[in-house]
Amino acid sequence: MLEYSIIQTRGFTNVIEDGRVTGFQLLVRMPNYRGAWASLVDGADVTVDGRAFSRDSTRWTLRGRTFTLDELRRSTDVHWDLTELATITVPLDGGLAPGVHDVAAAIYLRSPYIPAFVLPLRFDSQRECTLVPLDTGEGAGFHYGVSVYSYTGDMNTLMTLEDAMADIADLGATGIEILTQSTVPGYPEPSAAWIDEWQRLLEAYRLTPTNICSWVDNQMWLDRDLTVTEAAAQLARDVRLAHRLGFGFIRPKFGVISPELDPHPTWEETVLRTLDLAAELGVVICPEIHSPTPVKHPVTQNYIEFIERTGTGHFKLMIDTGIFQTAVVNDGHPGFDEDEVPPFLQPLKVPMTDLAEALPYTGFIQAKFFEIDENLNDLHIPWADIVRTLRDGGYRGWLSSEYEGRREPYRGREQVRRQHALLRTLAAGP
Amino acid sequence: MLEYSIIQTRGFTNVIEDGRVTGFQLLVRMPNYRGAWASLVDGADVTVDGRAFSRDSTRWTLRGRTFTLDELRRSTDVHWDLTELATITVPLDGGLAPGVHDVAAAIYLRSPYIPAFVLPLRFDSQRECTLVPLDTGEGAGFHYGVSVYSYTGDMNTLMTLEDAMADIADLGATGIEILTQSTVPGYPEPSAAWIDEWQRLLEAYRLTPTNICSWVDNQMWLDRDLTVTEAAAQLARDVRLAHRLGFGFIRPKFGVISPELDPHPTWEETVLRTLDLAAELGVVICPEIHSPTPVKHPVTQNYIEFIERTGTGHFKLMIDTGIFQTAVVNDGHPGFDEDEVPPFLQPLKVPMTDLAEALPYTGFIQAKFFEIDENLNDLHIPWADIVRTLRDGGYRGWLSSEYEGRREPYRGREQVRRQHALLRTLAAGP
Repeated sequence: MLEYSIIQTRGFTNVIEDGRVTGFQLLVRMPNYRGAWASLVDGADVTVDGRAFSRDSTRWTLRGRTFTLDELRRSTDVHWDLTELATITVPLDGGLAPGVHDVAAAIYLRSPYIPAFVLPLRFDSQRECTLVPLDTGEGAGFHYGVSVYSYTGDMNTLMTLEDAMADIADLGATGIEILTQSTVPGYPEPSAAWIDEWQRLLEAYRLTPTNICSWVDNQMWLDRDLTVTEAAAQLARDVRLAHRLGFGFIRPKFGVISPELDPHPTWEETVLRTLDLAAELGVVICPEIHSPTPVKHPVTQNYIEFIERTGTGHFKLMIDTGIFQTAVVNDGHPGFDEDEVPPFLQPLKVPMTDLAEALPYTGFIQAKFFEIDENLNDLHIPWADIVRTLRDGGYRGWLSSEYEGRREPYRGREQVRRQHALLRTLAAGP
Repeated sequence: MLEYSIIQTRGFTNVIEDGRVTGFQLLVRMPNYRGAWASLVDGADVTVDGRAFSRDSTRWTLRGRTFTLDELRRSTDVHWDLTELATITVPLDGGLAPGVHDVAAAIYLRSPYIPAFVLPLRFDSQRECTLVPLDTGEGAGFHYGVSVYSYTGDMNTLMTLEDAMADIADLGATGIEILTQSTVPGYPEPSAAWIDEWQRLLEAYRLTPTNICSWVDNQMWLDRDLTVTEAAAQLARDVRLAHRLGFGFIRPKFGVISPELDPHPTWEETVLRTLDLAAELGVVICPEIHSPTPVKHPVTQNYIEFIERTGTGHFKLMIDTGIFQTAVVNDGHPGFDEDEVPPFLQPLKVPMTDLAEALPYTGFIQAKFFEIDENLNDLHIPWADIVRTLRDGGYRGWLSSEYEGRREPYRGREQVRRQHALLRTLAAGP
């Protein structure tokens, strides 16, 4: 689906020609209700952070062909469909700096059935757009991914799975994280057609499946808990699904039995019974260390002891960076009482020394965050400290964006771009 | 695509069992970020216009199977996907009255990984929903359709062509009107695959193609106008496309040459050269009588004289009901200066006697409107007068909804339902 905003989130990038940054690009959808012959497009004045770029200097790309404004006006056979985005290329030596920009476009269209004195029609659009550094920043050894959880609310309403993949690829990430019950239609038995399409999309957007989030719903009925056999069957089923879809990590969320979030006592036997299958299929089972449970907590320490005791390579920690949160998140959370801040949105402030200690047991990192402002300051998560600790600790795994802030339409898409601009700037730094 | 609102526009209807109205239904999407086993769904309290319906009385339909709340809780193999809408059926003898209702739903979900004292999670949703009378109201002889122009802004961003068709079918209309340059990807040469899909969708939603809006862009270049040969070629190409897609009417919009909207002088020769083709393909060419041009105006009268003079059956008027507008529309219009009300949004107040006079020459009616309030009062268009005049004049053609009010997301979809509730109530009346 196209984005509702005329100026799109995707496609805002610098342009490299012959190894030199010569300008920047933005994608716009047709602002009028009808498609138009390109000869009726009278160009667009683009403004970035108050600096105006005249429409005469821009180039337009439609249906794969690129035109100057004069060529557009003379064209005879180029049509701008409502389903097609136009690329506007603006020349600017050195391009724009990475980060958030205030972008405006005034698009002009002629329309012969409207009297000439009214023409051209002018369509204004303005928004903040984030330019992610072209350098992938993988020099620090990290791999960058995005969880589709970041797009909660937008998925299936404003964007398809393909849109999510296109977003992820567009910001230069290479990993995709999904959720079994949320992302896979027909779960637990997706159709062969859906799996074919999943593979096709992975290839088209050159993405690697990273982690799949799953659940062991120990208390799925009111009158009794799952037996350990049933729980192990749930986990094994999802490990098989993970493997079938190409994932190397699976995060099972067990039912809890206390306000302190102690996992259901069958968790250990459930995992033990599944370890051989996980090893056979090359899938690592990762319990999530998630606020309000810190590293120095019996639950986490039990997982670490389990790893030590079994010596397994197929059970590791997943760290959710929400545990490092330093400021309260006041945005509420769907499903919870509006007046209260849920415990997992309170700052847990786990120290970096604990992260360093947990790193040898860590398989995967969900880069949880809630809000990054227009200056790329995260209001809650201390990324500079985290990136330094991960680099110093030799972490070479995934940083998988997990936006969990306000669920306003399209907000997650823009916030994820901000996070990647921030993380890569930090990773490329000293 | 699903609608962003948890309670959907589509699917809000009374339920008939054994010829009796026994309740009403609404469709909801999963409000949580993850899909769920149905045993974890703790029902939904539904409130309509302040009247509460307990969750214990409702039935749920998921993946084609219908459950009581107790059956849901005990179920073992039913999953509510994020891509699937749940149908909630609420028993109510006689159902709800046609019109706009204030509908609220509190959906409850358990989630075993969240401590029990927080459960169930509660997800609240509230909105206005319009119930369209089940009677199609075709007793008056009208046929009801919808132009996808009503969904401008939403098309390709929030809804697909299939969503548009599903909406139209859901409100009981049988005709679909589209726009060549806006609706047909690859215009003027859509792919065979797209045409196959168009046919499949028409069949699936049992819709008849009514009118296709097209343009003859006489001034598509700055330095010269189309020759009459070029103009006739544009029109002929679109007549062929109309026929290929199954349309019986085509509305060409000619370029204008004056502030009074006089059509380009080649219009008559352009039509003359295309009439044989139109007759051969069974397509009626309909110039649009659109505000600010009334019936008693040289432009309209020239069209009528042309019909009289040629005796053709393949050139008729299209009446846009905006010409009957009685109050100013202050909502602005995309592309036009914000501070001014464009001439076509000023009340033209064409009298009903003029409509009666024009009816014998009329092929198609675009039921243009801007805003219908929650009591089904149209703020600008005098529908009672129009429906009476059409009925008295023996009009038996299409009334094709054309919403042209504020372009806020999803607004057109709800407004079109209101218009159909209003039109059918009037058509069924005395």
